[in-house]
Amino acid sequence: MVERGAIADGNALRQTIFERYADFFPFDEIDPGLSLSEGFTPLVPSRMTASRLAVRNIFFKNETENPTWSFKDRGTAAGVQHAVSCGCGRIGTVSSGNMAVSVAAYGARAGLTTFALVSASIPTEKLSPIAVYGATVIRVDGDYGDLYFQSLEIGKRHDIYFINSDVPFRVEGSKSIAFEICEQTNFDVPDFVVVPTSSGGNFRGILKGFEEFKRCGLIADVPTMVCAQAAGCSPIHRAYVNNDPVISPVDHPETIAHAIENPFPPSGNQVLRKLRETGGLSAAVTDDEILQAQKELADEGIFGQPASAVPLAAVRKLRDRGIITEDHTVVCIVTGSGLKYTAVYGRYDLTVLSCSSAELEMMITEQQ
Amino acid sequence: MVERGAIADGNALRQTIFERYADFFPFDEIDPGLSLSEGFTPLVPSRMTASRLAVRNIFFKNETENPTWSFKDRGTAAGVQHAVSCGCGRIGTVSSGNMAVSVAAYGARAGLTTFALVSASIPTEKLSPIAVYGATVIRVDGDYGDLYFQSLEIGKRHDIYFINSDVPFRVEGSKSIAFEICEQTNFDVPDFVVVPTSSGGNFRGILKGFEEFKRCGLIADVPTMVCAQAAGCSPIHRAYVNNDPVISPVDHPETIAHAIENPFPPSGNQVLRKLRETGGLSAAVTDDEILQAQKELADEGIFGQPASAVPLAAVRKLRDRGIITEDHTVVCIVTGSGLKYTAVYGRYDLTVLSCSSAELEMMITEQQ
Repeated sequence: MVERGAIADGNALRQTIFERYADFFPFDEIDPGLSLSEGFTPLVPSRMTASRLAVRNIFFKNETENPTWSFKDRGTAAGVQHAVSCGCGRIGTVSSGNMAVSVAAYGARAGLTTFALVSASIPTEKLSPIAVYGATVIRVDGDYGDLYFQSLEIGKRHDIYFINSDVPFRVEGSKSIAFEICEQTNFDVPDFVVVPTSSGGNFRGILKGFEEFKRCGLIADVPTMVCAQAAGCSPIHRAYVNNDPVISPVDHPETIAHAIENPFPPSGNQVLRKLRETGGLSAAVTDDEILQAQKELADEGIFGQPASAVPLAAVRKLRDRGIITEDHTVVCIVTGSGLKYTAVYGRYDLTVLSCSSAELEMMITEQQ
Repeated sequence: MVERGAIADGNALRQTIFERYADFFPFDEIDPGLSLSEGFTPLVPSRMTASRLAVRNIFFKNETENPTWSFKDRGTAAGVQHAVSCGCGRIGTVSSGNMAVSVAAYGARAGLTTFALVSASIPTEKLSPIAVYGATVIRVDGDYGDLYFQSLEIGKRHDIYFINSDVPFRVEGSKSIAFEICEQTNFDVPDFVVVPTSSGGNFRGILKGFEEFKRCGLIADVPTMVCAQAAGCSPIHRAYVNNDPVISPVDHPETIAHAIENPFPPSGNQVLRKLRETGGLSAAVTDDEILQAQKELADEGIFGQPASAVPLAAVRKLRDRGIITEDHTVVCIVTGSGLKYTAVYGRYDLTVLSCSSAELEMMITEQQ
């Protein structure tokens, strides 16, 4: 039996997540020097949105405050600990988004050769944030879904650890999101935890974290997990509501939430099974609903990338249906920074005023 | 006498900086709901750069892990606490960069009318990250330096609190950077703390933080503070090395480190005086040196905006001159995220490879 007090015994300002929650990670020892102090992100209470939606409380787990400004750093950090402990000198990933940036940063820090495999169709400007860390970025012409499995095969043959989206160590890293939420709610966990779900690795990790704390008696219940997807690419949600035994690929994925636009998620069936076993929920939200939620999130002071607004949009939907009620407390996982996808500004009617310095005072008083 | 242990008594995962260091802030009470959990940023040790430069250790205080991804959030949070406690319903700032984004975010959260006054010459794409939080952005045609003072006058007349770059509450907020460094070094403070210096508000705040901890007996010494500027805009450094009594405006500022490109910093003379009183140092570095340092920082896994690399470039310079030696420990303040200024990618020779999926394995083995 782990004591609650023992966890908060250390000073989070001087620890890594792997040290603070050492009992729950599969490491005999860790090298703190590989860490960029990922995690320990804020749990920010809603000031306006909860009362507007008539929900008891909504918290935003702000994963944008990570070393590369997305939740991916937790799993990458776990993966790099593993790679280095095995003496593996090369790592890689299949991604052109948050995960590739994260793997590039941690690979650089660890002094590893790092491969980022991306689709041939990706525009160069998306690749610079990866290449700036010195990673070898390779555009691969061919089926992007197959590339996930091909990379694992190549990795096995050539001793390159591909820290892809749902590999076990990445799932382990994501557990720390749950551990922190437990601490931050004083072990009185929320009713719902809503996760933007793409590959399914982060969803699995967060659920596993809560389950492990429950098994140790640290929390009384595991929150109801909500798999939140974009309506334009919702293979897990679709299979769940249709009672399909397994997920099917989405033929023409299309959503502004590019970070979760995975048409055939590798952990999709595991998430589906877990949703059924645990009585979880799923929801799919349109691009308009995502943009509205992104604005509401910005009104709370948090600017997340579109995928990060999917949970809040899902909360609104579940509230409208009476599944989430005024008695409930909800945590939305805000997965990545709005600075990751600045093209979204074009979707807003952002106005800028102009005047001379002589006119300034009058212009300001007119705004009152 | 404050006990060291008392400070780390609370759990940083459940506190704001104003609660953790309450004895050192000028607030009778604070409203934690206004906070976005600013601060508590990592102090990341160098893995390669320190030994490459033959310095005992270099730490990076990673201020990019703040709610709007720059150090400005600490001062903004203090300013907004003050504004709300005074019943002031409107705030503003003169900035088109990190500070405006920060004030816009906190103003939105607090439900305040928020003005961001910017120069008429600023391109629209720099304004979207401010406007997305709902702030009123006004392009003002006229002298940008004068706008700082004009805004304070207008603010007095119309009850708008302009949380400009070096107002007292912003300086108070910056103290928390020093407090955290003390905790993170176990109260064994570094020999040097290097601050990218523009208005001078952050420099003053960090120094004040160390001085207050010393006065309470929490630390034995105040680190030597280093004012790091870009050679293309170094009014404080220039006055310091020339033994000028006061700073003079820089006529044609030009540097890639736009975030610290202030030709006539309002706290410049205060920083100058403090440098002289405390035996501080100053350094100016060229754009090429800044770019080199930005790359070295990325190799450590931290991608900062150009201004954030100025301290590391300054360390190299001071090391070359033998002022910093192999016996010294240094903290560099990494002030803001590299995602704030993506135009910098064009200054790097970033390469991307291409191949078909059939060629992938061969291409990877060729990279070995």
